[in-house]
Amino acid sequence: MTTSGVRAGQISGPVVPTSEARVAQRPLGVGDVTITGGLFGRWQRINREASMALGLRQMEEAGSLPNLRLAAGEGEGEFVGYRFQDSDLYKQLEAAAWEHAREPAPELARFIAESAEVLVRAQRADGYLNSHYQLVKPDKIYAELEYSHEHYCAGHLFQAAVAGARAGGDERLLAVAVRLADHLVEVFLRQGHPGIDGHAEVETALVELYRLTGTRPYLELAEKFVNDRGHGLVGDSGLGVHYLQDHLPVRQARTAVGHAVRQLYLDAGVVDVYLETGDESLLECSIRRWEDTVATKTYLTGGMGSRHSGESVGDRYELPSDRAYSETCASIAAVHWNWRLLLATGHARYADLIERILHNAFAASTSADGTRFFYVNPLQRRDDHLEGDYLGRRREWFACACCPPNIMRLVSSLGHYTATTGQDVLYVHQYAPGTIRAEPAGDRITLTTDTGYPWDGSVRFTVDQAGGGEWALALRIPGWSASARLTVAGEWVGAVPDERGYVVLRRAWREGDTVELTLDMTPRLVYPHRRIDAVRGCVAVERGPLVYCFEQIDQERGVELDDLALAPGATLRVLAEDELKGVGRTVRIEVDALAVAQPRAGGLPYFTGSSTEPVTAERVTATAIPYFQWDNRDGRAMRVWLPLT
Amino acid sequence: MTTSGVRAGQISGPVVPTSEARVAQRPLGVGDVTITGGLFGRWQRINREASMALGLRQMEEAGSLPNLRLAAGEGEGEFVGYRFQDSDLYKQLEAAAWEHAREPAPELARFIAESAEVLVRAQRADGYLNSHYQLVKPDKIYAELEYSHEHYCAGHLFQAAVAGARAGGDERLLAVAVRLADHLVEVFLRQGHPGIDGHAEVETALVELYRLTGTRPYLELAEKFVNDRGHGLVGDSGLGVHYLQDHLPVRQARTAVGHAVRQLYLDAGVVDVYLETGDESLLECSIRRWEDTVATKTYLTGGMGSRHSGESVGDRYELPSDRAYSETCASIAAVHWNWRLLLATGHARYADLIERILHNAFAASTSADGTRFFYVNPLQRRDDHLEGDYLGRRREWFACACCPPNIMRLVSSLGHYTATTGQDVLYVHQYAPGTIRAEPAGDRITLTTDTGYPWDGSVRFTVDQAGGGEWALALRIPGWSASARLTVAGEWVGAVPDERGYVVLRRAWREGDTVELTLDMTPRLVYPHRRIDAVRGCVAVERGPLVYCFEQIDQERGVELDDLALAPGATLRVLAEDELKGVGRTVRIEVDALAVAQPRAGGLPYFTGSSTEPVTAERVTATAIPYFQWDNRDGRAMRVWLPLT
Repeated sequence: MTTSGVRAGQISGPVVPTSEARVAQRPLGVGDVTITGGLFGRWQRINREASMALGLRQMEEAGSLPNLRLAAGEGEGEFVGYRFQDSDLYKQLEAAAWEHAREPAPELARFIAESAEVLVRAQRADGYLNSHYQLVKPDKIYAELEYSHEHYCAGHLFQAAVAGARAGGDERLLAVAVRLADHLVEVFLRQGHPGIDGHAEVETALVELYRLTGTRPYLELAEKFVNDRGHGLVGDSGLGVHYLQDHLPVRQARTAVGHAVRQLYLDAGVVDVYLETGDESLLECSIRRWEDTVATKTYLTGGMGSRHSGESVGDRYELPSDRAYSETCASIAAVHWNWRLLLATGHARYADLIERILHNAFAASTSADGTRFFYVNPLQRRDDHLEGDYLGRRREWFACACCPPNIMRLVSSLGHYTATTGQDVLYVHQYAPGTIRAEPAGDRITLTTDTGYPWDGSVRFTVDQAGGGEWALALRIPGWSASARLTVAGEWVGAVPDERGYVVLRRAWREGDTVELTLDMTPRLVYPHRRIDAVRGCVAVERGPLVYCFEQIDQERGVELDDLALAPGATLRVLAEDELKGVGRTVRIEVDALAVAQPRAGGLPYFTGSSTEPVTAERVTATAIPYFQWDNRDGRAMRVWLPLT
Repeated sequence: MTTSGVRAGQISGPVVPTSEARVAQRPLGVGDVTITGGLFGRWQRINREASMALGLRQMEEAGSLPNLRLAAGEGEGEFVGYRFQDSDLYKQLEAAAWEHAREPAPELARFIAESAEVLVRAQRADGYLNSHYQLVKPDKIYAELEYSHEHYCAGHLFQAAVAGARAGGDERLLAVAVRLADHLVEVFLRQGHPGIDGHAEVETALVELYRLTGTRPYLELAEKFVNDRGHGLVGDSGLGVHYLQDHLPVRQARTAVGHAVRQLYLDAGVVDVYLETGDESLLECSIRRWEDTVATKTYLTGGMGSRHSGESVGDRYELPSDRAYSETCASIAAVHWNWRLLLATGHARYADLIERILHNAFAASTSADGTRFFYVNPLQRRDDHLEGDYLGRRREWFACACCPPNIMRLVSSLGHYTATTGQDVLYVHQYAPGTIRAEPAGDRITLTTDTGYPWDGSVRFTVDQAGGGEWALALRIPGWSASARLTVAGEWVGAVPDERGYVVLRRAWREGDTVELTLDMTPRLVYPHRRIDAVRGCVAVERGPLVYCFEQIDQERGVELDDLALAPGATLRVLAEDELKGVGRTVRIEVDALAVAQPRAGGLPYFTGSSTEPVTAERVTATAIPYFQWDNRDGRAMRVWLPLT
């Protein structure tokens, strides 16, 4: 047993609270969960086969590795890219480590080894490591933390090193990380440098490095960064104090503000520090922010952050579909935050939101073939979007490429986020075909899941290995499922979830025992809270965990998407599961609709009661596909929310 | 008679087409129109008494004059502000010139004289003048036009110099402008430098300098800049080719795109070049853009530009209230563009839009006391806006201070935009108390206007001086007036406008003749085109030319603004004219409304049909004030559009 409470030999995952941590649930390792199919399986396969190759190539082409070689005094040229260019490599390394842990591959091992060698040589004697500041601004090290991203980059290195170590990867990566972490401790904890990075991220990473190594000053430094924020110490990046969450101490801030990704990583760190220190004021403030942010600042897709300007959260109920920012990295950071809240509280509402984010805002970020990515994930695109430089389509890579490698590290570690254990409970949060190994109540057990989820709502579990002791299987009943049915060994049992959102089946499980959970996959019309101005008078379609959208390409010939309107209570028809060209396996939904055409105004598009332009309506069938599958065919209009007639 | 077709001794205004110009109507001079009251009069008084003093002081404090002194080799220090800092001074000089023309003031004359002296000394021997490039980047002159704003600054200097010359001001200003214009002609016309400024503005200014001086190469250079745009010559400012309208040649571009102010100044220049060259393809393309932009990209307030990102126009029907950018400078540029279209076509629809912009989007930019300004003019503010750094309130000045001096130059020259003459017609476009002198059909006439407009819809004209010849008085019947009544010398006459929007009264007018126009001031409920997603299911209130808004401060105690809802067809009650503390003279409108409270969701703010949160409704009275008067009391919530019940 190490500090991390992980079994020797186990390939543990990204978040491994210590045995002393205040957890209600404890994660399994990446190696304990094998996903063999379903959407998660498909995403992992495409991630491995298409995205990773692209990512590895970009580490050379986009400059991250060349920059670090320059910092090591090797090669010729100039620093390329953003000042946080190193972080792309670190995320890619983390992705490679988890992927290598899932199934070893020589090209991944080689990438990790070669990168580690470069990092060893690039790191300064005192432990400092950041290619931009070493090459471009050596006199400004730690002097402009408000926008330097030095701690942010360090945090991603720590997470990559933790992944490498837990996945049995290269030890040199961990050595580099420890030397840099020790340098941070020396400067910011021992010498009392008052600075804080403008982009939170290092907090959660330092806690994890502490969990892996047992080096307590890493936790203390994370705690200091969390506590010191909000006292005006970060400095002025030119975008204000809210932008980088320096407006209020974390215990006082009531809601998510400013740059969404920064806020969400910060809150992941806040909960991590709570988990390891037991400071309940941190958990309380983070839950308070969660409740406000989820109730007023979260898209139907689970995406967060509504503004392009400052990539920021936006005001309460400011949730435009067309200009939704909903950055992919914000979805990833939100999964991190919700996962830690789930571990801390054991409440399924966090797993519900993780499911929503993963299946919608996050899943939409990657093309069906894994080779193109969205940075921004709007809920609407108009046809005349094509008049701008930015066409709003997925792209292979970005000058600021924070998202693609971030996507890859999350997909590679998806298994980590599907199940947990309590004292004598195995919790299953996300339903995907595969196997789960765990040790509830000390018994080594194996559970196999068979399901066509989320296309179909039936999930069948088989206990393949059991020690004979009593333990509980806790299944999350998603908030979207109006009802659920459950059988154990063919016998009906109650499926009403407890107050935390789980049905708990406690018994002495035997090998061969089966449990069948049937969720309500009836498609749903969803209405917005009336304070959301942007989608007033509109309705959306959901089925299971999937939000649906209407793309121009699927509509009847001659019908303009923006003319579609639905009657309240319209009947939704689920089509048979299908393989759609360019999109892959899907389930479409049809609905009777009206095509409501209003002629373009001759002057301004506003009318007094007496001069409203005539409107014509025609009965048509509107067709929807899952939102995450949009933009895989053409670049035309898309809407999640349709007007009501 | 000079080239400009202006009478000797006349103080002509900002736009004076030559006698050869293809005009349907011809402007009067600033000195021909005296405004003595009403809103225009109030704005001019406040502009003179409060805003101008602030502006003159900022020319020293914000660095514009000190920068130019440094460029002249005087004083010590470093360049301060943006690379287009000179342009603030030029706009302020133009404002001072028109203001001085309206009524001489020693401090204005001194400011103009002192500034001119500095400019004379700062200008290089070859005519080049730009303090930023002279001081900071002398090796980059004309080398980075994609973002240098060198032509943009030159354009504003030309307009200031034209104003100075026409207002009988300092000759040195014109000499400096001519030397710089000659320098531009030498470099860009004679030597064939292919560059174009990323920020259009110089085109319209060069045409005006041509009109004043008769120097034809200025017109040729303007024509070249207009023709060369859209061929990829501007270069990459990092914000794309649409941002700076280099995506398509002006004759091919179908709609306004990119940075709104740039697009609108460009189109002012396009029409100006048409007016002086007769190239009808230019007028046609500009009208095509106008029709698309007005029908799909213009706010109810007349504001244009819906995006904070890139200060850009936005997609068709992308008109959010909360995140409306509607930059003040875009309103000003839109007035310039519409004015030129009015002169070219003689169609009142352009004067209609000018009225809408002036009374709403533009008027809202300045506080009731003239000391604070909006850069951004949204149609909605939420209370929780207070959680961001930017509180969305008017400010005294801006680091990027393009708007305040731009406001001042327009207000000082407002008279120019109120009336025009045709062959034997006096057109009155904007109704304000005062006098108009003109020479329709060669007769020198004076017309006095008495009106409480826009608070009341009655406008009384008296012919105070007439030569006895026959001429026509053409009165614009605003598009918003459902009907109009008209008497001449007490006798009813028809008031149905002709196809261009005017009622034309032709006769041999005699001194003492009176005309009384009564417009329909019944308040109106206004509904949006259904393609405007952002205000679907909402309604707004207008009366006369004024758009109304609901501010939290005017609502019943305990009623939250965002809970208000109106029934379709709700009865609007106009309150008696009133003096409201902080706001000034106003007319409020009351309406029976509901306060519809929906509790905050426990989780996400989305509900399936079966679980919609209960809504409570209470009958209340909602109170609206003119939009332009908002934010003069507190910083709380405001809405132009209210949901329908």
